Amino acid sequence: MTDTNDLIYGVHPVAEALKNPKRRFVSLLASKNAADRIAAEVATAKLNPQIIHPSELDRRLGTDAVHQGLLLEAKPLIQPRLDQIEKSGIVVLLDQVTDPHNVGAILRTCAAFRVTALVATARHSPEGSGVLFKSASGAYEHVPYVKVTNLSRAMEEMKSYDFRIVGLDSEASGSIQEANRAPPIALVLGAEGKGLRQLTRANCDELVRVDLDGPIKSLNVSNAAAIALYALTR
Amino acid sequence: MTDTNDLIYGVHPVAEALKNPKRRFVSLLASKNAADRIAAEVATAKLNPQIIHPSELDRRLGTDAVHQGLLLEAKPLIQPRLDQIEKSGIVVLLDQVTDPHNVGAILRTCAAFRVTALVATARHSPEGSGVLFKSASGAYEHVPYVKVTNLSRAMEEMKSYDFRIVGLDSEASGSIQEANRAPPIALVLGAEGKGLRQLTRANCDELVRVDLDGPIKSLNVSNAAAIALYALTR
Repeated sequence: MTDTNDLIYGVHPVAEALKNPKRRFVSLLASKNAADRIAAEVATAKLNPQIIHPSELDRRLGTDAVHQGLLLEAKPLIQPRLDQIEKSGIVVLLDQVTDPHNVGAILRTCAAFRVTALVATARHSPEGSGVLFKSASGAYEHVPYVKVTNLSRAMEEMKSYDFRIVGLDSEASGSIQEANRAPPIALVLGAEGKGLRQLTRANCDELVRVDLDGPIKSLNVSNAAAIALYALTR
Repeated sequence: MTDTNDLIYGVHPVAEALKNPKRRFVSLLASKNAADRIAAEVATAKLNPQIIHPSELDRRLGTDAVHQGLLLEAKPLIQPRLDQIEKSGIVVLLDQVTDPHNVGAILRTCAAFRVTALVATARHSPEGSGVLFKSASGAYEHVPYVKVTNLSRAMEEMKSYDFRIVGLDSEASGSIQEANRAPPIALVLGAEGKGLRQLTRANCDELVRVDLDGPIKSLNVSNAAAIALYALTR
């Protein structure tokens, strides 16, 4: 996402981007109805939308993209490096969680719980980024999204900033209810099915599980993230 | 879903359906690799899979369906009526939550927290049902799914079975942390953005909120469900 412009669609993602003073805009395509719906945000951004028929966006984005009559092209946000993120609170790290629906949903929940950054290794295609922005429902404008090339090295660096690394692992002996909740915390989440990689697990200061007693003991990763953030912020 | 057969695709949904003794099967289409992968479940179900090329399933289901080389046709499960569900534990009610991805993710989390039934008004198209089964990742085989025509009437009926009706509402004065956790509980979730309808809200015994202090105070409905179920089962 650093090489090409961000293509953002949908009411919430576009409205939040227009309100973000750090954004630089290239163009806004909008249906008449959609332009009216976000007129206040458009005025704030001092943008002149190009009014189009919604089918034009179907053609450009495919019929699966829930664009709601809005497509904003903007310069990518400048994201911080690890040494530039806030050293208090909670940071979330993703270990091979790449599905843009999941990453977007996690970003949204991170924004709700005032997580100070999301750290991930994955790069998304322009189409994947559009899905991520939509699933994040505007949260992408609020949560710093730090891309790193090596997660283990990022974990080491965060330890040097005094973050306690807490990994979510269904096999852990400790329950998240009893986890040390003193910030700063780096919460590490693994991919569904596979969980944390062995090296990731070894680099954690603490491993915790969410207690589940039902017939299927596995959660969607964004649901697991939501529970973990709730438990760590009580 | 009561008129037509269930079309179930994806490894987890198909494997769980094959292990469900209450299922009656019509046919199983499988790629060679996929058939090998779930050979044990196929043997349990005493089914003879028809080996096909995966592109055959792309053609039948569309390229967006993550079928993983498996398509099972089965008779719909016979679902209980409200008066037949377990009268202990937690039941989840959906007020106009209809997106099959969300309903499926909620079912999956319900299975993880041993929820005794999911109650909803929505009916899904065969395509929507396929998405729901896939998002539920096998949980559809474990959680009774009760369809009702009128949610308010269902709430009244559940009160007569001594369920306490707890509605999740961002405007509620009480926090879910302080909610009365004594079962039986009927937890009511509303659609994102709109929340609970006025009549639904009026029919609740108690309204509770999830405390969020971030810049965007709204969660994906399945993430909200996960937090609520975690909080109510601690």
